[in-house]
Amino acid sequence: MHQSQLFTKTQKEAPKDEISVNAKLLTRGGFIDKLSAGIFSFLPLGLKVLRKIENIVREEMVAVDGQEILMPALNPKENWQKTGRWENFDALFKIKGADEKEYALGATHEEIVVPLAQKFILSYKDLPLYIFQIQTKFRNEIRAKSGLLRTREFSMKDLYSFHADEKDLDSYYEKITDAYFKIIERCGLDEQTYLTAASGGSFSKYSHEFQTITEGGEDKIHICQQCDLAINEEIKPENPTCPDCGSNDFKEVKAVEIANIFKLKTKYSEPFDLKFRDKDGQEKLVIMGCYGMGPARIMGAIAEVWHDEKGLIWPKEVAPFDIHLLALGEDEKIKKEAEALYEKLISRGYAVLYDDRDATAGKKFAEADLIGIPWRIVISQKSLDKSSMELKARNAQETYLLKLNDLKNLADFISSPAKD
Amino acid sequence: MHQSQLFTKTQKEAPKDEISVNAKLLTRGGFIDKLSAGIFSFLPLGLKVLRKIENIVREEMVAVDGQEILMPALNPKENWQKTGRWENFDALFKIKGADEKEYALGATHEEIVVPLAQKFILSYKDLPLYIFQIQTKFRNEIRAKSGLLRTREFSMKDLYSFHADEKDLDSYYEKITDAYFKIIERCGLDEQTYLTAASGGSFSKYSHEFQTITEGGEDKIHICQQCDLAINEEIKPENPTCPDCGSNDFKEVKAVEIANIFKLKTKYSEPFDLKFRDKDGQEKLVIMGCYGMGPARIMGAIAEVWHDEKGLIWPKEVAPFDIHLLALGEDEKIKKEAEALYEKLISRGYAVLYDDRDATAGKKFAEADLIGIPWRIVISQKSLDKSSMELKARNAQETYLLKLNDLKNLADFISSPAKD
Repeated sequence: MHQSQLFTKTQKEAPKDEISVNAKLLTRGGFIDKLSAGIFSFLPLGLKVLRKIENIVREEMVAVDGQEILMPALNPKENWQKTGRWENFDALFKIKGADEKEYALGATHEEIVVPLAQKFILSYKDLPLYIFQIQTKFRNEIRAKSGLLRTREFSMKDLYSFHADEKDLDSYYEKITDAYFKIIERCGLDEQTYLTAASGGSFSKYSHEFQTITEGGEDKIHICQQCDLAINEEIKPENPTCPDCGSNDFKEVKAVEIANIFKLKTKYSEPFDLKFRDKDGQEKLVIMGCYGMGPARIMGAIAEVWHDEKGLIWPKEVAPFDIHLLALGEDEKIKKEAEALYEKLISRGYAVLYDDRDATAGKKFAEADLIGIPWRIVISQKSLDKSSMELKARNAQETYLLKLNDLKNLADFISSPAKD
Repeated sequence: MHQSQLFTKTQKEAPKDEISVNAKLLTRGGFIDKLSAGIFSFLPLGLKVLRKIENIVREEMVAVDGQEILMPALNPKENWQKTGRWENFDALFKIKGADEKEYALGATHEEIVVPLAQKFILSYKDLPLYIFQIQTKFRNEIRAKSGLLRTREFSMKDLYSFHADEKDLDSYYEKITDAYFKIIERCGLDEQTYLTAASGGSFSKYSHEFQTITEGGEDKIHICQQCDLAINEEIKPENPTCPDCGSNDFKEVKAVEIANIFKLKTKYSEPFDLKFRDKDGQEKLVIMGCYGMGPARIMGAIAEVWHDEKGLIWPKEVAPFDIHLLALGEDEKIKKEAEALYEKLISRGYAVLYDDRDATAGKKFAEADLIGIPWRIVISQKSLDKSSMELKARNAQETYLLKLNDLKNLADFISSPAKD
C-alpha cells in the first residue's frame, strides 16, 4: 500500500486521557481510535493486525477440529433466565426491543450454543463436537480502562466442546492448552505468558487462565519458580504450594488474562437438558468445556510487551505489513527505483507499506519506528549510489546494504512468506 | 471437508413457523438456525456462503479505493443527538450502560464515521477519501420476517465517501454503481436486479436502490420496459415517466432491496462541522455520499432466486463448496477411490464437501440437491466399473462419465479455481 493513500496520520503525542501504554502507542500509530471509554474503532493498520491475530486463532481452532459458526449478539432473555445468569452475570447489557421482547447482548454464548447443539446432538455418534466462533462480545463494564485490555465491546473467540464423558473432556482440555500455546507463540507472547490456575471450581482442576506479564495488566499472578505454573492471586492461599511440582517458591507479577479454559462439565447441559443416547441406549447429560480467547486483547498485550521508546515492534506473524519501504529525497530517480522495488516485492508476495510521501527523512524514520513493521528498507541517493537498498530490522540496530536486485538475499533475511 | 464430520444435519421439513422460501431452504439445508424472530445463527455451511459474499464485496470496495476499518456497535447517545436521529431514527435500539451512559446500537454509522474522518481530513489534499466496513448492524424492527430478508441483526457493508465538491461526488456515485453491479453479477443476481430510483431527495438525483425481483420481497418497484431503470412504489407518481428515457411503459413487480446509495452532500458534515481547507485557503464543508449493501440479505435473496423444488442452487462464486463428492455403496474399494479422488481435488485447489457417510444413495442425492453445491461427482460401483466418476451440474440434467484421472477435463467442465 502507498502510504500517501493511507487516510490515517500518526500523532506525536498521545491523547491526554490515555494512561495505558497500548492505548497510547496504538492511537499515536493510527491503529485504533477511541470513540468512548472502552469503545474503539479499528483503523486500517489496526484492523490488519486484528484480522491476522483472528486468523491465527482460527487456523489453530480448525486444527483441533473446531467447526466455525457465527451466533447473534442479540440473545433472548429467556435463554439467560434458564441458567440464572440474566440476574447473576454482573456485566450483562440488557436491552428492550420494539416488541417489548428483552435481550441480553451476548457476553459469552453458553446460553445460545447449548440449545443450538441440542438440535444436532442425538447419540454418542454425534460426540465429541467442537464448535467455535470469532464474534463481537459486549460487557457492561463499570470501569473500562487500559486501552484494548478491558473494553465494553471486543472481538472474542469462544469454542465449546461437547463430550460423552469426562475422560474425553480431559484429553481435549489438554489439546486446547497446547493449541493455545501455539497461538500465543505465533503472536510473539510465549515467553511472557503463563498457564495460571484460577477460580472456577476445585483448585487447578476446573479453570486455567493464560496470563501475559505486563505492568499494564489488572491481575496479579504468582509464578512457581520451579515449573512455571502460575496461580492467580484470587485463589492463592497464604503459603502456596505449586499443584504441579510441590515447590513453595513463587514470584508475584502483574499480568493480563488473554485467554481462559473451563471444564463446564454439566453446568450448562443440565439447565437446557442437553442429553445424548449412549451406546447402551441410556440417556446421559452431555459433558462440556469452554475455551475463550480475546484477539483484540491479545493485540493490546502485544503492544504492551513489544515496544520501545520509539514505538511499536510487531512480531512477524501479526504485523500489519512485512516491510516498510521508505523513499528518501524527492529526486525522481529515487521515487522511480523505490516504486520499481515496491512492485517487485509485492509480486513476490510480501505485504509492503511504501512511504511515497514528500516528507523529511527524520519524519519518515520516526513514523516507521512508531508503526513498528518488522523490516524497514530505505531507498536514498546514498543507497542508489551503490545500486543498493538499506535493510534494517525494527528490533535491531544493524543496517545491511543489499543490491537492488538481490531479492534472494532479502528473502533470507526476512525469511518471510515468499522465498525464491 | 468430510460430511461425516459436519455437525449440522439437513431436515426434510421446514420449521412450521417459517413462511419465506429463503428461511425454509436455508434452515432445512443446515445453513442457518433461527434463535428468535429476525435473529439467526450462521452454521458452518451458511457462514461459508456469508463470508464468500462479504469477500466479494470487500474486493470490489478495495477496487474503488475503499479503505477498510471497523467501527463499534456501541454508539454514544451524544453522537446520535447531534444529527437529531436519537429521536428520529425509527428502528434504533437504545441501551443504558452501568455508568448511566446511554448508547444506540449502530444501525448505520454516519454518526461515528464523520467525527472519525474529521480527525484526519484537514485540507483538500486529504480528499477524496473512501472508508468502509463490513460490520454487524442492529435494527429494532417491529416485525422481523422473511428469513434473512429482514432481520434485527445483520452483516452490512457501509462505505462513506468524502469529497471536495459535488462533481467529485457525482463521479464516485457512478463508479460505485458500477462496482455494485459487479458484485451483484458475481453473486449471480444480475439478471434479477434493477437500479431503482427511490426517496431521499429530489427525484432520481439523490438515492438509488438495487432491487432484486422476488415474490419474497417486501418492496414494489415499477420497471421501465424501455431502459430497465426502476422506480420504487414509494415515490411513483400516478402516471410515471421514466427519468432516464422518457417512456411511460412500466411493469410492477415485488422485490427486495439488497443495496442503496445516497448523495448525502452536507447532511452529516454540517451537524459535525466537518470542514476542509480548500486550495484557496477557504474552509468549506465536506461533501459526502454513503453506500450500503447487505451481505446476509444478498444471501437470502440468492436463496429466493436460485432454487428449485429439490433445494438450493448456489451460483459458483458464493457456493459453500465447489464440488459435492458422493461415495455410493459401502464397499471398501468405493470408499478408497472416493477418498483418493477427494485428496486429489483438494490438492488442485477445489473446495470439496465429501459425503463419506454410510447412507443410502437416495438420501445422499436428496441432500446434495438440497444443499445445492454447483457440481456433484458420484463414485459408485457402476462408475468404477468404467474407471470413472459421474459428473453433474446442480442446475442441469445431463450427467457425464469422466475417467478418474481425467482432472484436466474436469477442470474444463468446472472452469473453477484450479486449472491445469
